[in-house]
Amino acid sequence: MQEKVRVVVDAMGGDNAPAAPIAAAVDALEKHENLEVILVGREEVIRTELARRVKTIPSRLEIVHAEDVIEMAEPPVNAIRRKKQSSIVVGMNLVKKGEADAFVSSGSTGAVLVGGQLIVGRIRGIERPPLAPLIPTENGVALLIDCGANVDARSSHLVQFARMGSIYMENVVGIKNPRVGLVNIGAEEEKGNALVKETYPLLKECPDINFIGNVEARDIPAGVCDVIVCEAFTGNVILKLYEGLAGTLMKKIKGGMMSSLRSKVGALMVKPALKKTLKTFDVSEHGGAPMLGLNGLVVKTHGSAKSVEISNAIGQCIQFEKQHMNEKIKEHLIKEKENN
Amino acid sequence: MQEKVRVVVDAMGGDNAPAAPIAAAVDALEKHENLEVILVGREEVIRTELARRVKTIPSRLEIVHAEDVIEMAEPPVNAIRRKKQSSIVVGMNLVKKGEADAFVSSGSTGAVLVGGQLIVGRIRGIERPPLAPLIPTENGVALLIDCGANVDARSSHLVQFARMGSIYMENVVGIKNPRVGLVNIGAEEEKGNALVKETYPLLKECPDINFIGNVEARDIPAGVCDVIVCEAFTGNVILKLYEGLAGTLMKKIKGGMMSSLRSKVGALMVKPALKKTLKTFDVSEHGGAPMLGLNGLVVKTHGSAKSVEISNAIGQCIQFEKQHMNEKIKEHLIKEKENN
Repeated sequence: MQEKVRVVVDAMGGDNAPAAPIAAAVDALEKHENLEVILVGREEVIRTELARRVKTIPSRLEIVHAEDVIEMAEPPVNAIRRKKQSSIVVGMNLVKKGEADAFVSSGSTGAVLVGGQLIVGRIRGIERPPLAPLIPTENGVALLIDCGANVDARSSHLVQFARMGSIYMENVVGIKNPRVGLVNIGAEEEKGNALVKETYPLLKECPDINFIGNVEARDIPAGVCDVIVCEAFTGNVILKLYEGLAGTLMKKIKGGMMSSLRSKVGALMVKPALKKTLKTFDVSEHGGAPMLGLNGLVVKTHGSAKSVEISNAIGQCIQFEKQHMNEKIKEHLIKEKENN
Repeated sequence: MQEKVRVVVDAMGGDNAPAAPIAAAVDALEKHENLEVILVGREEVIRTELARRVKTIPSRLEIVHAEDVIEMAEPPVNAIRRKKQSSIVVGMNLVKKGEADAFVSSGSTGAVLVGGQLIVGRIRGIERPPLAPLIPTENGVALLIDCGANVDARSSHLVQFARMGSIYMENVVGIKNPRVGLVNIGAEEEKGNALVKETYPLLKECPDINFIGNVEARDIPAGVCDVIVCEAFTGNVILKLYEGLAGTLMKKIKGGMMSSLRSKVGALMVKPALKKTLKTFDVSEHGGAPMLGLNGLVVKTHGSAKSVEISNAIGQCIQFEKQHMNEKIKEHLIKEKENN
């Protein structure tokens, strides 16, 4: 028999809550026999929404009431400290107490990041837990690590990002011997700012990762590596420029196609193919971003995530547990210690 | 009568040299009556190429022989120091000695940046001369300042970038009261790394710029500001991701359109409109990147620049001189000193 995996889903977080997370929970339960879901949020809201979807509440679904909701604009540290009855705090406490394995939320990124650190807590030895979304590339996806809230990282943090990212891509995404690249402004070893110059030789010496050297931002979309290591400020710029540039380009392309009758007719014919292509290049389509290195898994889904994406994120949690990701991260920490 | 402007053009730099820079020189001379061009490079190569284009050498064109060429892959500092007879060193020396106003090259970016600092030299009071390309946005262009080779900038550098960028956009590109944004990972003042947190209040207090606050990378392509202020590492990531993402997206879109007969027919019909749209979003289409804050102007054109882009860059130099850009930068430095 498969091991049970218990995932807490924030029923109140994101633009499409509560409908999207609740539909995702129902969908994921149908797909995964070994899954148990705990929906956290206002009980009456959850019950009403559930009643619209299922006749009886599924046996592997539990509801845990949380009166408060952390709004997107609230300062994260304050919100986590004060709103003890919010869905994020209540949900994360379930993970902390070992009553659940993972927590999935489309709510405030800041609050999820702060809660991950303050409530769920870091694995002993992990200096900084990174947020690591998958971003689309020409032929697949790559893990962008770190996009979190903690900027001004040190080189030792980046080395841990490279290690955890490799373990994640190999075990959860299924890419053998993932190629690790360090974001830099040139390909040569001596290029870059103080941080990357210090990090490069450390990564080169790591025996347990497949370090391919510096990667320039130009080559990231082509899929030159599977694990893109960078400091959070740079990661955030990359992630957000991906979103913004794809959006603006599409707007321009659509506008351009509407500029003549001939291209208007053509546009109608290419529309389905174009739509499909763009979907593969939408940052929000690639499941949730795991926050790695915590005592339990926290997954942040896009604020505008629909039920299918949240359901995929729940699937990621199952894979994460099945592969004993955190045990593998801990093994690496022990090896790291032995090597030093 | 208009003031004469003397521009040195590196005849040996870039993928399309010597044809592209020489054609650009001839074209620019036809367009601008007050222009004088000095072509620097191997004299016999220049004469042969010129003979293919014009019957007699134009009266406002001079050839200055330079035996050496700095290759793209050469370490810049070494190349500038050792190759005294290279087109870049000989050309920049003409600017230094006051025999020319500006230098345009499609050669090695590193060598142009190093040469700009070591040979042409900084304006007294300028701490660091930034490289500032124009990047395409939804409705126009924005100046990305700095994309240079000197990373790990200080906040005082960023303030000078904001000032010089504003003067450039207002006077050379013709945008009244240009909006200045600071690249950050959130819109709020308290967000960011140590550098931007220190820079934000300084920019807020600048009386002579139109500071609109933090900008996220997501909003850059939409054209949220005219002067994008950032440290060179971040600027380099933005510039190169712009190039890479646009390229990959187009490849995906083209591939997607070829996936069915229906979309293939449609693709033929939208092709001209699509091509036009993409041209407006090509980073290399927007003239040269000026290196600001030097005793003279240095403009770096894309390595793959064609003659039309180089000719446009020569046009930029004329506008730069006509607007007395460097005098304006110096005036600002005096004001800055008085305010402190």
